[in-house]
Amino acid sequence: MAAERKVYAFIHHEFVPLAEAYLHISDLAIQRGYGIFDYFWIQHGQPLFLEDYLNRFYQSADLMQLPVPLEREALREKVLELIRLNNFPLSGMKLLLTGGYSEGGYEPGTPNLVLIEQAVEYPEQENVEKGIKIITHQYQRELPAAKTINYNMGIRLIGQIREKGAQDVLYHQHGIITEFPRSNFFIVKQDNTIATPAHEVLKGVTRKNVLELASATYATEEGDITLDDVLQAKEAFQTSTTKRIVPIVQVNDTLIGTGRPGPVTLALLEQLEALEQQYLAQYK
Amino acid sequence: MAAERKVYAFIHHEFVPLAEAYLHISDLAIQRGYGIFDYFWIQHGQPLFLEDYLNRFYQSADLMQLPVPLEREALREKVLELIRLNNFPLSGMKLLLTGGYSEGGYEPGTPNLVLIEQAVEYPEQENVEKGIKIITHQYQRELPAAKTINYNMGIRLIGQIREKGAQDVLYHQHGIITEFPRSNFFIVKQDNTIATPAHEVLKGVTRKNVLELASATYATEEGDITLDDVLQAKEAFQTSTTKRIVPIVQVNDTLIGTGRPGPVTLALLEQLEALEQQYLAQYK
Repeated sequence: MAAERKVYAFIHHEFVPLAEAYLHISDLAIQRGYGIFDYFWIQHGQPLFLEDYLNRFYQSADLMQLPVPLEREALREKVLELIRLNNFPLSGMKLLLTGGYSEGGYEPGTPNLVLIEQAVEYPEQENVEKGIKIITHQYQRELPAAKTINYNMGIRLIGQIREKGAQDVLYHQHGIITEFPRSNFFIVKQDNTIATPAHEVLKGVTRKNVLELASATYATEEGDITLDDVLQAKEAFQTSTTKRIVPIVQVNDTLIGTGRPGPVTLALLEQLEALEQQYLAQYK
Repeated sequence: MAAERKVYAFIHHEFVPLAEAYLHISDLAIQRGYGIFDYFWIQHGQPLFLEDYLNRFYQSADLMQLPVPLEREALREKVLELIRLNNFPLSGMKLLLTGGYSEGGYEPGTPNLVLIEQAVEYPEQENVEKGIKIITHQYQRELPAAKTINYNMGIRLIGQIREKGAQDVLYHQHGIITEFPRSNFFIVKQDNTIATPAHEVLKGVTRKNVLELASATYATEEGDITLDDVLQAKEAFQTSTTKRIVPIVQVNDTLIGTGRPGPVTLALLEQLEALEQQYLAQYK
């Protein structure tokens, strides 16, 4: 039997066992839900598209007026050091920046930077093979360009998603689609144009990669997509760091296209996996 | 010189020194800003209007689908025990309920209940004597009936409030006033009607007490108040647990009424203080 693996985290400027990584309750994340984060995958010791994630992490911090206590170069080093320490074959790492310890419990203090790495598994093949059902909900994330820790709405909707036999919830504002709580949204139009919402969404790194891949073969559009556009689409899918590309075959009570994962979606997923391997190959 | 006072908190079902009260970083407040709280004052060992605050605490927990790990009776006992332990002359207590330790970092676990008590001081007399300036900002709190820990917008606006030489920010949605990040809002109309927003606001305990007190002398209204109504008002004020009643004498660039705290506001503040004393007297 394998010895139990000791997992480390980075907190309070040092590496400690994850099980011992605590924040005092005066932290503004606990007091006021104030913080930002980002999250990326690591394959065989190599973080995927790290610079894109670091860009967004610093951008979110800036939008929430939280100074990151480490310069980018120093942060990258801590990321790589934690990867070496934990030595997972496949993992995800969260960079978390909170409002810090706040005496009055309202004004930000010195932000606390926390790095958490955990083993992950590749996305469920079943979802790719069968596609998923989603429901829709009217809601606009606050400050969508920042990856804040506020997931109140998404978490409250977990029960409703399950009740409807669905696997995720797509937000819209008065019929204009935006995003999922943790993923971006795409459709393949009848003319094979690949379209994704442009406004009031978090610009995902996978979203960016998919747009680039798609543009080699198809017309691509970043713009407003209505609920009606979705129901008329040939294919639909979601993109995220953890899920890559997942085909969507049903929205509320309506089947999309044939009601099965479509060829454009599946081809893009293959290309995305190839892009990951190509990215990793440059570090070998 | 007085010995340093040891302050206790309640966390993980026990009383511990506040300085040692920590949550693991897997808590959903830290991971996803998911939690609710409430906050009340304690004068000479007696929590003010405790049952109202407990009502709202359980209501917020219910709205956020977080089971409170203690029944009301047991929670009240812990509150009173912590008050005895800390023995402050004047304090505020926060009841905090988080989404709990979550393995995947998204689905709520068993909620963590935390009680924090800290010494407070009576509201600044200067604000009452001079009144305050406020600015306005378009924003609608998510799930306003629940006292969630999400204060992203309010905290981000701290800098803007200061730049404008103001002391607080009043939210409105398309010109319909709602509330401050941490207080309710009232106006005294030209005919002496006392009016406060009714919809999409957190119903404050002080708001409730002020409405009751006011109704003995004045007509009161809970309904829509527009920005224009505010600028036409004779007086305006904010109410909260920590601030009681604070006169508002300027909204953005416009003076309200005479530009000085008005007699109706000041009389209500006196009555509120009397109500507190009356409340406390029943426990003597």
